[in-house]
Amino acid sequence: SPSHKEGRTTGDEIVEIHANLDDQPGEGLGFVIGKLLEAGAYDAYFTPIYMKKGRPAYQMTVITPKQKCRIMADLLFQHTTTFGIRYVNLKRTILPRTFKKVCTKFGEVTLKIGMIKSSKKVTVEYDRAAILANQHHVSLEQVQQAALLAYNKEDGMA
Amino acid sequence: SPSHKEGRTTGDEIVEIHANLDDQPGEGLGFVIGKLLEAGAYDAYFTPIYMKKGRPAYQMTVITPKQKCRIMADLLFQHTTTFGIRYVNLKRTILPRTFKKVCTKFGEVTLKIGMIKSSKKVTVEYDRAAILANQHHVSLEQVQQAALLAYNKEDGMA
Amino acid sequence: SPSHKEGRTTGDEIVEIHANLDDQPGEGLGFVIGKLLEAGAYDAYFTPIYMKKGRPAYQMTVITPKQKCRIMADLLFQHTTTFGIRYVNLKRTILPRTFKKVCTKFGEVTLKIGMIKSSKKVTVEYDRAAILANQHHVSLEQVQQAALLAYNKEDGMA
Amino acid sequence: SPSHKEGRTTGDEIVEIHANLDDQPGEGLGFVIGKLLEAGAYDAYFTPIYMKKGRPAYQMTVITPKQKCRIMADLLFQHTTTFGIRYVNLKRTILPRTFKKVCTKFGEVTLKIGMIKSSKKVTVEYDRAAILANQHHVSLEQVQQAALLAYNKEDGMA
Amino acid sequence: SPSHKEGRTTGDEIVEIHANLDDQPGEGLGFVIGKLLEAGAYDAYFTPIYMKKGRPAYQMTVITPKQKCRIMADLLFQHTTTFGIRYVNLKRTILPRTFKKVCTKFGEVTLKIGMIKSSKKVTVEYDRAAILANQHHVSLEQVQQAALLAYNKEDGMA
Amino acid sequence: SPSHKEGRTTGDEIVEIHANLDDQPGEGLGFVIGKLLEAGAYDAYFTPIYMKKGRPAYQMTVITPKQKCRIMADLLFQHTTTFGIRYVNLKRTILPRTFKKVCTKFGEVTLKIGMIKSSKKVTVEYDRAAILANQHHVSLEQVQQAALLAYNKEDGMA
Ligand code: NI
Ligand code: NI
Ligand code: NI
Ligand code: NI
Ligand code: NI
Ligand code: NI
Ligand code: NI
Ligand code: NI
Ligand code: NI
Ligand code: NI
Ligand code: NI
Ligand code: NI
Repeated sequence: SPSHKEGRTTGDEIVEIHANLDDQPGEGLGFVIGKLLEAGAYDAYFTPIYMKKGRPAYQMTVITPKQKCRIMADLLFQHTTTFGIRYVNLKRTILPRTFKKVCTKFGEVTLKIGMIKSSKKVTVEYDRAAILANQHHVSLEQVQQAALLAYNKEDGMA
Repeated sequence: SPSHKEGRTTGDEIVEIHANLDDQPGEGLGFVIGKLLEAGAYDAYFTPIYMKKGRPAYQMTVITPKQKCRIMADLLFQHTTTFGIRYVNLKRTILPRTFKKVCTKFGEVTLKIGMIKSSKKVTVEYDRAAILANQHHVSLEQVQQAALLAYNKEDGMA
Repeated sequence: SPSHKEGRTTGDEIVEIHANLDDQPGEGLGFVIGKLLEAGAYDAYFTPIYMKKGRPAYQMTVITPKQKCRIMADLLFQHTTTFGIRYVNLKRTILPRTFKKVCTKFGEVTLKIGMIKSSKKVTVEYDRAAILANQHHVSLEQVQQAALLAYNKEDGMA
Repeated sequence: SPSHKEGRTTGDEIVEIHANLDDQPGEGLGFVIGKLLEAGAYDAYFTPIYMKKGRPAYQMTVITPKQKCRIMADLLFQHTTTFGIRYVNLKRTILPRTFKKVCTKFGEVTLKIGMIKSSKKVTVEYDRAAILANQHHVSLEQVQQAALLAYNKEDGMA
Repeated sequence: SPSHKEGRTTGDEIVEIHANLDDQPGEGLGFVIGKLLEAGAYDAYFTPIYMKKGRPAYQMTVITPKQKCRIMADLLFQHTTTFGIRYVNLKRTILPRTFKKVCTKFGEVTLKIGMIKSSKKVTVEYDRAAILANQHHVSLEQVQQAALLAYNKEDGMA
Repeated sequence: SPSHKEGRTTGDEIVEIHANLDDQPGEGLGFVIGKLLEAGAYDAYFTPIYMKKGRPAYQMTVITPKQKCRIMADLLFQHTTTFGIRYVNLKRTILPRTFKKVCTKFGEVTLKIGMIKSSKKVTVEYDRAAILANQHHVSLEQVQQAALLAYNKEDGMA
């Protein structure tokens, strides 16, 4: 259906980079994620793996726009113990999204809204919600629920 | 060797789709696997990952025939919280397989048999074996062992 | 039932020791398991965990007879980066077991046999089976299956 | 505070049982969970662990009322490959809960409601919600959101 | 040996609390760790587990001084979706530690030093080292290595 | 920069092979890794995954030079229970490395040294260090630290 086609954006050229880390402590790996995201990676994460010689280890994965692949490789060689990285080209499909602010009793919260066919997909942005939960001594979930309720009231009225 | 070449089927066009899920509870993820398999995915599974900001999360993977890639994408956008999916073309090699029924004291069990060079590879189909184990108040392993013994007796006689 | 009571041995005093490792590479952790088992631990293993500040880490667990608890603690302080360990007393129930050798076309294999109520529980000992699989260029599973078949033939004849 | 004290129930005598499984395939482990829950376990689950000799394995955990500990042990010896189990007494604190049905456009959904100090904690029961999501070809999350909205409307009116 | 006895401090009364989380997204779990540590937990972390009905989930663990057990329980009920927690008393053994500052070309770094029998155990404190690595555009490991070298030079001269 | 370009080697044709294993015990998986590495795989490892029907399982990954892909497939079909494998071509970038021996009080240790832009990346080779740690009843880390110190002294003198 036409609304369907409009609902998605395809064709981004992205690269997935892998490196296996068995001789680096986990303590500094959050630090590495920070460096990669700061430099423009779409995502960076670790998977627990079982390697040779009974070694618990981590597979590092970086999802990056193609033109930043070299920068990411440099960061991996600088900030991890790896002597080799592997990479592969991927395609990506993303939902077009709009952002919307709603008022809750805890303050203003941002929602990310995607169109998926006939229905909408709504997520509460984490960073702002976490700040409000801290300020008001409530749980993150209470802020998130308040935001979704506010959205549904507004949306119901439209 | 010729028997070797016959022993494998290569060239399937398949696609691996990835999405990272950090804002969806695990409770409903078995539900999502069900939807994907029902719609024709070859496999669908989750990997525990460590994401930014100290977030435990899951990487969802779907293995699908190429022509079903769009359907799988739609299901992922509908049934998970993701706003973006990544995919890559893979090749696949599978063992040709035959199915064979054997009689055990618990009832009829189905075996999956593959030819791998000179030797055979035999697996007991789970669903039927689990039903029989439940009916006869024995362990799954007892049914599986009975089936493999029955197979070996028949095979030994041939 | 009386046979049931005989089937289990309870009352061992054992200790479970935990330590969280976030600043030690996985590479040397197999080494640590070796040291602990050599010194008499019943078991020693790692669990992947998600710690504060986005740190992938491992929880080390040692299961030890109570009288060896101090030795294990010393080994943990010496061979891991931890500055603190936690421990708790556990009880243990084990199946009495006998060992039995069976002849297969690959050579002699050892089985571990436990009585669990009316049925027997049979496992193929790994170390010897792995050596035979290597020598005969077959899979570990082929040796294990051969051993179970040999056992079932002997047992069936009795 | 008094409402606080009323809000929790403490003192249940429960037992945590552990067994390490390195020689049983994962395929049948869902089957084992079923057996344990059916027999009255509070919970039963697996943790991926790294054992000696480079073995990926699972730690099985069963949470059981104390008087069912023996039954659980028997089930573990019957349905898993383990030759030994470990157990420890735990205490448990649970939130008193009420169940409430709410009407949504997808049908009637059950909510579990706990009192935690001044605020309420509300969860949508999975089984019924999953059936409705299947019937109406929507996502589990849509049913859950509808149920929470219905609850909030009713609650807001009170 | 006497130095051995001095080398460890035992007897802390601590509690380990467990809760299984299958209906809470991972996104907010780093938030929960923050709350618990802020309130005085010794440690708080998550373990990936496999629960009933095919549910990927997390086991939350909190290690807390005994007198803070109730506060931690309240925080768990407020900030997670759990309706029940389990807990057990543990003992703890810690290495007495001293802290020492060393000068590196990147700035002053703090070391944590423990006495383990005849040898010393030295760790570089993360927070300060991470700040210096960021400021000087080097890897965390470069700062850590510089600190260990500085320590060894000083120590070697003594 | 030119030194940068010299610092990396790109263009290796490698293949990543995947197979999901849900009906094979973890016990023999270390054995499988051994077979694959012996036959020339660059790496082979397991990832814990959550499959359909509540099955804990492992994803096996093999990283292999392209020309050995068929041999690896044969080994996977022989030594694992899988009936199908998936593979994809990857590119690889590795740091050129030199090896250097240094003298420590425990004996001679081998270092692997890579050039990453202006700085060097130094790792202690595991196998030799582990042997020395065993011989001298010290921790692996003590041997590794001694080797890095020896390297830094030599390097500092140059
Ligand atoms: Ni991948
Ligand atoms: Ni390495
Ligand atoms: Ni406010
Ligand atoms: Ni029957
Ligand atoms: Ni435990
Ligand atoms: Ni032989
Ligand atoms: Ni309906
Ligand atoms: Ni525990
Ligand atoms: Ni639940
Ligand atoms: Ni500075
Ligand atoms: Ni992959
Ligand atoms: Ni020596």
